[in-house]
Amino acid sequence: MSASEDASKHLRVAVVAPPWFPIPPDGYGGIEAMVHWLVEGLVARGHQVTLIGAGDCRTSAQRFLQTYEDPPGGRLGTPFPEILHALQVDEHLRDLEVDVVHDHSMGGPLVAIGRRTPTVLTAHGPVEGELGECYRLLSRHHPLVAISASQRANGPHLPWAATVYNAIPAGEYPYETDKDDFVLFLGRISPEKGPDLAIQAARAAGRRIVVAAKCNEPAERAYFEQRVRPLLGPDAEWYGHATTEEKKKLLARASALVFPIQWDEPFGIVMVEAMACGTPVVALRAGSVPEVVVDGLTGYICDRPEELPAAIRRVDALDPKACREHVFDRFDVPDMVDGYVAVYRKAIARAAAAAVA
Amino acid sequence: MSASEDASKHLRVAVVAPPWFPIPPDGYGGIEAMVHWLVEGLVARGHQVTLIGAGDCRTSAQRFLQTYEDPPGGRLGTPFPEILHALQVDEHLRDLEVDVVHDHSMGGPLVAIGRRTPTVLTAHGPVEGELGECYRLLSRHHPLVAISASQRANGPHLPWAATVYNAIPAGEYPYETDKDDFVLFLGRISPEKGPDLAIQAARAAGRRIVVAAKCNEPAERAYFEQRVRPLLGPDAEWYGHATTEEKKKLLARASALVFPIQWDEPFGIVMVEAMACGTPVVALRAGSVPEVVVDGLTGYICDRPEELPAAIRRVDALDPKACREHVFDRFDVPDMVDGYVAVYRKAIARAAAAAVA
Repeated sequence: MSASEDASKHLRVAVVAPPWFPIPPDGYGGIEAMVHWLVEGLVARGHQVTLIGAGDCRTSAQRFLQTYEDPPGGRLGTPFPEILHALQVDEHLRDLEVDVVHDHSMGGPLVAIGRRTPTVLTAHGPVEGELGECYRLLSRHHPLVAISASQRANGPHLPWAATVYNAIPAGEYPYETDKDDFVLFLGRISPEKGPDLAIQAARAAGRRIVVAAKCNEPAERAYFEQRVRPLLGPDAEWYGHATTEEKKKLLARASALVFPIQWDEPFGIVMVEAMACGTPVVALRAGSVPEVVVDGLTGYICDRPEELPAAIRRVDALDPKACREHVFDRFDVPDMVDGYVAVYRKAIARAAAAAVA
Repeated sequence: MSASEDASKHLRVAVVAPPWFPIPPDGYGGIEAMVHWLVEGLVARGHQVTLIGAGDCRTSAQRFLQTYEDPPGGRLGTPFPEILHALQVDEHLRDLEVDVVHDHSMGGPLVAIGRRTPTVLTAHGPVEGELGECYRLLSRHHPLVAISASQRANGPHLPWAATVYNAIPAGEYPYETDKDDFVLFLGRISPEKGPDLAIQAARAAGRRIVVAAKCNEPAERAYFEQRVRPLLGPDAEWYGHATTEEKKKLLARASALVFPIQWDEPFGIVMVEAMACGTPVVALRAGSVPEVVVDGLTGYICDRPEELPAAIRRVDALDPKACREHVFDRFDVPDMVDGYVAVYRKAIARAAAAAVA
């Protein structure tokens, strides 16, 4: 294979971020974190990446094109940032020669309906209800990628182009085999995440629990006051919001992550982060849990909350090495990049065929 | 001119409403009211109108295509209804043979960037800031219509296709020459509308004022409690929210509408409604006021709030007939229809020329 043939395999990819936070995000921002690792992974493989996003994006992308100077994260949930961002993205793309666009925003795909460059979408949210109907209509024009088989099963009416798991740079997570005597809840304070169930399960198991969670929105604060604060005590410590570095330390030190998820979360990246640190996951069966956790090897999957305490008592039987290796095997950034590059190539081939026809 | 030639002049127009309220709106909904009268006026002129909107639309349009079954008005200000509505509108338009689309939504024009059928936009909001930037980018693809010369002057960077005033069916408004002894404030409780200035001006003029206004959102209620309620008294009556029919009665009976507008409102339809009832307008000079009110004939335009009381004292010198005739001359539905049909024909001709080139 000649050098030129090899170079021709590299793609020119425009990655469109949502408007709300910079890439990588300072704190909250699950989609933004995934976009960050995708960009890093694509560049590491030699692809030419243009990132289009808001604010001060610091990635390895060869080119960055800005929409909002200040990301309007404070207005998350309002319509104009999505609309203006989509229009600004479109202006940038008009001046750009790329093979494929991978759009993670909600407004961008609307403009992309009329664009010739193939555009790949990832369904980052639940595929039921209003968002599911948005995905259904968008998937008539763009290849749509699921982030788990569970999400895909919840949207059987959608013409899924592929399933590509979200990933993390597993090697950058601290690996710890000598665990402390606490279990960890890490996430947001909301009924869907089950922080109260986690505390009750740890207490019933006779284990101390640390609760580190985002709790700044009105609904989160209300749930905290009503359902979480009354459960706190010497064996249930409120840590509050944890920074990225604090999260990693907590995950590495904990003897288990308790993940009593109450809805079909399409993908729970925190489970992967825990396992990367050699920390098993004790979870309730919902959403992507059975795909991410290997029951009896990298954690325990319970069908009912009453089963959680017994599972928590048995976590020391699990091997941290198996947890970490599972992440390297399945949820490391190169796995995600391989998945998406295959989707990009198919989309490019399909668009080329359509242009000829 | 033969019958077929005459018929060929009629246009097939798709009118896209915003997703939030039905057409006509039950209560609040300024854009929706304008869309309603535009549809009625186009049909009255023999054009073939397809209305695309949410909920139970009751107009004279020959065809109605629904997006949301229940208009999501309660979620006004959130992004997904705009996005899903835009996608559903696009699906409807794909099956439709029309000459021109007139889109009053915010998400629809994003999808329309890639469509061949010419799409006309009306700038219903202020043209500064974020919304102005949206209009600027959209106007690269679609003809953009201003609703007043004032709005147009505030957006000199925008390539305006035309200015078309909003209109009402003037003949359907009650005409009253024998006025009651009160002046009226009609609108929303907000600092931009100046309800407190209206009360203070009426009191200083020794005239009773009735304050009829929308006051259900948190910011409106807060402003009411802080700045309006303390000013109420025997000579300043709080009416609360007025229905469409109640508004007409209040407007007809009032000896003047007090309109101490505090921002460059692109178009204040309530001034037109007052004049249609034979009621003059005492206003502050801002936005479209000098275009809508003929100073000294259909009302008085003041430069400072201190001038309002003297103007209120002089309203009996103005002729109700002149007020009403001014609306029939300039702001009646056929005027608006003429304006938009001219824009449609230009857009169609331009698209046809572009297709040939």
